[in-house]
Amino acid sequence: MVEQARAGQIRGVKLRQAVLDATMAQVEAVGIDEVRIAEVAAAAGVHETSIYRRWKTLPRLLADALVSRTEAEVPIPDTGSVRTDLVWFTTALARFVATPTGSAMVRGVVLHGGDPEVADVRQEYWRRRLAVAEDIVRRGQARGEVDTDADPALVVLSLGGLIHIHATHLGRDLTPAEIDKAVRMIVDGIAARPE
Amino acid sequence: MVEQARAGQIRGVKLRQAVLDATMAQVEAVGIDEVRIAEVAAAAGVHETSIYRRWKTLPRLLADALVSRTEAEVPIPDTGSVRTDLVWFTTALARFVATPTGSAMVRGVVLHGGDPEVADVRQEYWRRRLAVAEDIVRRGQARGEVDTDADPALVVLSLGGLIHIHATHLGRDLTPAEIDKAVRMIVDGIAARPE
Repeated sequence: MVEQARAGQIRGVKLRQAVLDATMAQVEAVGIDEVRIAEVAAAAGVHETSIYRRWKTLPRLLADALVSRTEAEVPIPDTGSVRTDLVWFTTALARFVATPTGSAMVRGVVLHGGDPEVADVRQEYWRRRLAVAEDIVRRGQARGEVDTDADPALVVLSLGGLIHIHATHLGRDLTPAEIDKAVRMIVDGIAARPE
Repeated sequence: MVEQARAGQIRGVKLRQAVLDATMAQVEAVGIDEVRIAEVAAAAGVHETSIYRRWKTLPRLLADALVSRTEAEVPIPDTGSVRTDLVWFTTALARFVATPTGSAMVRGVVLHGGDPEVADVRQEYWRRRLAVAEDIVRRGQARGEVDTDADPALVVLSLGGLIHIHATHLGRDLTPAEIDKAVRMIVDGIAARPE
């Protein structure tokens, strides 16, 4: 036993989860620009100092909360078909990007600030977030559905890029028909070719 | 003759070009966040009021200057091969996005602000900028190189999206080898199929 827990004060994994949940609740209630550490601490039932000790700054707390939430909300399917899996993944990502959390993650509102460590968190987030989806392509290669020369990262980044450019630069979401068409184009481009 | 030109005072097309050139010179000299209308006016040799009359606000002036510059810097090739044309286009766009002007255009630094008219300018800019590249795909369809079902906008947005997601979320540029691979994947995905 390293340390004795004090009565009425949560810590460790429980503290982390309570604070992240309270942070996301605040994001949803008041908008990401209005979240304050004092209010998060009160809602989570922890001391403000516990938050500062663990996360140091508000942007880092927000980054951690957003990353955790996103990982829960964009599942990676495994249906046995690359095309179906990619349509599912792209649809889930597009839906997430249309939520306030997803929109903040894409536009990098708070996370974009002057803090380079926060910029790193955000870039690392997207690398991880997209990298897990590469398994969809690798499984297709293992099944002989996808050409072994195909680049899983490129496939995922192309679909992710489409969603991002729509959200940030065209100001609208992709329709289901557009997602279907995009996936078909990419899947045709990476299909295993007869020798 | 609608109006008499006053001596020593440029106007019309000449005024517009002088002001846009002075704006871009300021962007390059001091950075986009430090551009001031008074200094642009002095450098262009026009009255500040002429700038306010025509552009109303600094963000709109910057948007107009950036759009004009970009249109000059990302040419649309026509080599007779969709693949070669798309590699050229994507390379030019990636190179532009790596410049201070391009970076500002992608991140929307100034252009993102509260002014909805400016957000519209930026979205309209990307729509126009990418739409002209759709001709690459359409010419390929006319030559029988590209499937008639292929969606030219989707092709261009996929390549543009790849560049954007790299610049904004992964914090790095695409390499020439990556551009080549991406174009090959897309071109294979839209190739005309034998019946």
